[in-house]
Amino acid sequence: MSYCVALKLKRGLVFMSDTLTNGGLDNISCYPKTFCWGLAGERQILLATAGNLATTQAVVSTLSEQTKKLKEPRDSILGAPTMFQVARIISQTLAEIIVNSTPSQQTAKSAFSATMILGGQIKGGETQLYLIYPEGNFIEVSDDKPFFQIGETKYGRPILVRAFDPEMEFNDAIKLLMVSFDSTMKANLSVGLPLDIRVYNDGSLTSARELRVEKDDAYYQMISRAWGDALKASLVQLPDYDYNQD
Amino acid sequence: MSYCVALKLKRGLVFMSDTLTNGGLDNISCYPKTFCWGLAGERQILLATAGNLATTQAVVSTLSEQTKKLKEPRDSILGAPTMFQVARIISQTLAEIIVNSTPSQQTAKSAFSATMILGGQIKGGETQLYLIYPEGNFIEVSDDKPFFQIGETKYGRPILVRAFDPEMEFNDAIKLLMVSFDSTMKANLSVGLPLDIRVYNDGSLTSARELRVEKDDAYYQMISRAWGDALKASLVQLPDYDYNQD
Repeated sequence: MSYCVALKLKRGLVFMSDTLTNGGLDNISCYPKTFCWGLAGERQILLATAGNLATTQAVVSTLSEQTKKLKEPRDSILGAPTMFQVARIISQTLAEIIVNSTPSQQTAKSAFSATMILGGQIKGGETQLYLIYPEGNFIEVSDDKPFFQIGETKYGRPILVRAFDPEMEFNDAIKLLMVSFDSTMKANLSVGLPLDIRVYNDGSLTSARELRVEKDDAYYQMISRAWGDALKASLVQLPDYDYNQD
Repeated sequence: MSYCVALKLKRGLVFMSDTLTNGGLDNISCYPKTFCWGLAGERQILLATAGNLATTQAVVSTLSEQTKKLKEPRDSILGAPTMFQVARIISQTLAEIIVNSTPSQQTAKSAFSATMILGGQIKGGETQLYLIYPEGNFIEVSDDKPFFQIGETKYGRPILVRAFDPEMEFNDAIKLLMVSFDSTMKANLSVGLPLDIRVYNDGSLTSARELRVEKDDAYYQMISRAWGDALKASLVQLPDYDYNQD
C-alpha cells in the first residue's frame, strides 16, 4: 500500500509520498513514488503514483521514453502544449498498460491497477493538479479543497479536511502532511518511511525542491510524539459530556 | 455503510453506533444497529452490527426467537453458560445466514456479509468483548487496546489509537467516541446521525443505559465545532518545519 498527497497552494504545489512497496509483509522494498520531469523556464511536471509497482514503473518509463522521441514531440509530456494534454497522455498510457497487463477485460479492480496525481505548470498556463484514474480518465482539483490523496487515504484524511488552507506557507503544509502521514503509518504498517517531499514554487518553472524524511528524522519524530500529546490534550480540554445528569 | 465502536473500560462497556442504512444515496433509512438482551442480575448482552441489513436483522431475529424456545435453553444467548458460548452461538448463526443467502460458495466478500461486536457479562464471569467475523469465527479484545471498530473504521481510528485509555470514565469515553464519529461522518456521508450509545456498568448485570444523540444535539454540535478548532490550534502550536534553512 502507498500513501501520497498533493496540495495545491497559492504558493505552489507540495507532494508527499511514502516509499514502501510490498508484495506481502516479508517482501518489502523502498522505491520512490513521486517523479519529476521538466524543462527549466518552460514547464515542470510532478507525478505521484499508487498501486501496482510494475504498472507505475511501466508508465513512468514509457513517459520518459516518449520525451526522447523527436518525431512527435506533442505526444510527449515535455512537448504537449497544456497541462490538460499532459494529463491525457499520462491517463491514456496508464490505461493501456493496465489493459495489456490484465488477461481479461480491464476493470478498475484489476490487480495491475494504479492511480496517479499529476501536478505542474507550463509557461503561459496556471499551475494545475489532476487525479488520474486507472480507467484512463481524470479530474482536476476543486477550488474548495484543492488537494488529492491516493492509496491508503482514510486515516490521514480528517486532519487534512480540517486544517488544510490553500493560503498556507510551504513549511506549514509540510507540517500538516507529516501529521497526516503519521496518522496513516500508525494504523497501516504497509505505509512507511522514508517520505519524499517535492515543493514546486508557482510561476517559477524551475525544478521542484526535493526533500527526504528519513527514519531517524528528528523533526518527524518530534511531530509524531507531539501530535499524539496534542490530540490527548485537546480532547481533555473539550467540555465534558454530562453523563450523570441525564 | 455503518460505523460502530465498542470500548472495554475498567468501569464497563461503551457501545456507539450510527443509525443510517442505505441502499444507494437515494434510499436511506434509520435503523438501530446495536441490540441488547438481558436477564437482570444474571446476564447482559450487547451486540453491534455492520453490513448487510437483511443479514443483521435475520441474525438478531433468530437470536431473539431462540431465547423463547424452552427445549434447548443452552443453545440460546440467554441460556448459554459463558460469554464464549454466546459468541459461538452468534457467530454460527451469522455464518449460516450468510451461507443461506449466498447463491454460490460463501466468502467474506459476499454482498450478504456482516460483522458484529459482542459484549456482555454473565454472573460469575468477567465482562467480555468479541469481534465476530462473517466466516463464523471470532476473536476477543487484547488487553493493550481493548476496543473494536466495525464498518467504516479508518477515519475515526487515529484518535482512538492515540487517546483511548481503559481507565477512562464513561463521560470521557463518550466524548472520545463522539470525536471519532464526527471525523467519520465528515468524510463518509453514508455514516450518519442519530447515534446510539449503550453503557454497561461492569458487574452490575443490569440493563445497559441507552442514550441517543439526535441531529440537533447541542453537545455533539459543540464537539464537532470545537474539535475542528482544537485540531487547527494544535497544528499551529507544533514547532514549524524549517523549510528555508535546508
